[in-house]
Amino acid sequence: MFMFEKPLGMVDTLPNLYEVKKKTRHAMTNVIEQWGFQFIETPTLEYYETVGVQSAILDQQLFKLLDAQGHTLVLRPEMTAPIARVAASKLYNDLYPLRLAYSANVFRAQQREGGRPAEFEQVGVELIGDGTTSADAEVIALMVATLKEAGLENFKIAIGHIGYANALFKEVLGSQERVDVLRRFLYEKNYVGYKEHVKSLPLSSIDKERLFTLLKLRGDIDKVGEAQDIVTSSQARDSLEEISQLWSILEELQVTDYLQLDLNIVSHMSYYTGILFEVHADNVGFLIGSGGRYDHLFEKFNRAAPATGFGLRIDRLIEALKMTDEQKLECVIYSQERRLEAIAHATKLRASNKRVVMQDISGIKDVDVFTKHFEEVVYFIGSRKGEL
Amino acid sequence: MFMFEKPLGMVDTLPNLYEVKKKTRHAMTNVIEQWGFQFIETPTLEYYETVGVQSAILDQQLFKLLDAQGHTLVLRPEMTAPIARVAASKLYNDLYPLRLAYSANVFRAQQREGGRPAEFEQVGVELIGDGTTSADAEVIALMVATLKEAGLENFKIAIGHIGYANALFKEVLGSQERVDVLRRFLYEKNYVGYKEHVKSLPLSSIDKERLFTLLKLRGDIDKVGEAQDIVTSSQARDSLEEISQLWSILEELQVTDYLQLDLNIVSHMSYYTGILFEVHADNVGFLIGSGGRYDHLFEKFNRAAPATGFGLRIDRLIEALKMTDEQKLECVIYSQERRLEAIAHATKLRASNKRVVMQDISGIKDVDVFTKHFEEVVYFIGSRKGEL
Repeated sequence: MFMFEKPLGMVDTLPNLYEVKKKTRHAMTNVIEQWGFQFIETPTLEYYETVGVQSAILDQQLFKLLDAQGHTLVLRPEMTAPIARVAASKLYNDLYPLRLAYSANVFRAQQREGGRPAEFEQVGVELIGDGTTSADAEVIALMVATLKEAGLENFKIAIGHIGYANALFKEVLGSQERVDVLRRFLYEKNYVGYKEHVKSLPLSSIDKERLFTLLKLRGDIDKVGEAQDIVTSSQARDSLEEISQLWSILEELQVTDYLQLDLNIVSHMSYYTGILFEVHADNVGFLIGSGGRYDHLFEKFNRAAPATGFGLRIDRLIEALKMTDEQKLECVIYSQERRLEAIAHATKLRASNKRVVMQDISGIKDVDVFTKHFEEVVYFIGSRKGEL
Repeated sequence: MFMFEKPLGMVDTLPNLYEVKKKTRHAMTNVIEQWGFQFIETPTLEYYETVGVQSAILDQQLFKLLDAQGHTLVLRPEMTAPIARVAASKLYNDLYPLRLAYSANVFRAQQREGGRPAEFEQVGVELIGDGTTSADAEVIALMVATLKEAGLENFKIAIGHIGYANALFKEVLGSQERVDVLRRFLYEKNYVGYKEHVKSLPLSSIDKERLFTLLKLRGDIDKVGEAQDIVTSSQARDSLEEISQLWSILEELQVTDYLQLDLNIVSHMSYYTGILFEVHADNVGFLIGSGGRYDHLFEKFNRAAPATGFGLRIDRLIEALKMTDEQKLECVIYSQERRLEAIAHATKLRASNKRVVMQDISGIKDVDVFTKHFEEVVYFIGSRKGEL
């Protein structure tokens, strides 16, 4: 019946899952704070022109509404554009590099029932105003630390560079139009379609082989050598040089066990401009998070500033963690006359940080069912004491 | 310029205020958990028919939008109706009494610029399925404990009963229409208007005196005697009886120092049905929170269940607390060659729970300005060590 329903993709989080989320969020935000990133909060609603347009989430995925003045508002679809708005307007250039963080719900309208959440929580960071590869490395190392602190052990961060595939495609295909067509297969991770498409192109067998080789450029950092062999442009070579430099910094930061090279990553976010990455947990089939460098977003807010960051999805992380939580509650049941004893008992237990329900027996319909859900129940009723 | 603007009533929370909010929220939710209330989360968007209509917030204050299926959605204007939806649909009657809690942003559209936030965070509880006065007392005592734990000292909880003024008005005025007109003055806390209106009514001087006396029924619990003298109906007398009983339970719970009687409270929420209350801090002019009994809301979700609860506004509580926070950050600045030393130093500091920024010197534009904002700065650059 309609009365109990929620809009498409909207979910309730009941007590046990709430607890797991809270613990996971706490572990994550704690590490992020220790690394000197400062959390901020931005509004759920933003102007479409300011954040909706810049966010690079598909327009059809935006929840839009009109305010009383007739402006179009959106429920924020991600946090990078809102944080860029704040950083560009309130936090001045001379403070750069700026390290900001968030833990916030974001919204993506769903077109049909399909189990995808329309509202989910992201925890992430943005490092603004630092164009060095050290900044990329810091963000990746922090993401590893954040995931480990949350309890995730078996995961890999696939690292790529937006410039490499672009440059290779341009070398081989020439026109941007053709580049875009081929790139789309990578974005959709449709490798069969990619191969079919390459076969159909009017190219030399050497050039086709170069495009097939791209698909193999995933795995160990050694693959950078192979990657170099199939490109000649400086853009492609610079991308590889940047990745090599990144890797050596990440070795010093001792996180390379969690990394793999993936020169096939092509993010859906049109604003990425350099190194980018995706987090995969070994036991689940979806991305837990992603990130990368976006050096042009701030120009849209009338400031020039390089930036890099990551966003992690708590719901997916929890699924990968397979964490559960059963809250332990105790209960003190009393009758009017013995309320004072009950208060004293509950107060003592609560002071030792136990969770204790105090319940007037006359407010319970079925005492057997009610008491079933508690770890321990103590009664202060009638004339006898401390019945257990 | 438009690019930096936010919709009417929307605010950004920058790092220092974020920290204060986080600490305040943590203190509050901690006590609520110790009292055995379980936190849940509900979606930001709900169906207008389900939650918008039931919420009893003025329609013009609702943010409304259409989903892809053409249903009207609202951004939740408060949390009681969403929690009632969850409790009525997912958490069964036989678990009652049910103790649920929330910490969530709610939304109220603003018609014009006036400093009122259109999105703010509420922390609150709902005690569902317990119609005893013990339940009312529990919720009030928990609210006192929550406010004290957050650090608030000088505050008062004004306690009234929706039934008393209603019954008195009905005794004196007869028709519900006349009752509603007079009640509106109380709701608006327009006591001058109330007096003028009473003067203008065609009533005996004794009846007018009864209505004037109502305004004096605020302060100590002793005023209940005076309140009894001006009513005859059983509804009015039952309301006073309930308040007296509540008071004696609250004495056992040792919170009466924070209480005062106020028989003039008439809440804007049309769903209140019994005892209700408001929190005032001594140093600010607005309500920090409110609550009360609402025994009819669940009927709208096809279940009958008495219920009581409170909601507190974190933004207003923080204003009353006059709390500030300056985050202490340390910084380790390094050059490429000495990165390993810098990592070791930062790792050690972070392990002792310090917040430490690690910054590549080549990513800083103006080192003098950048370092100004840190408690301590350690340099690992060039050939010298540990420059301070």
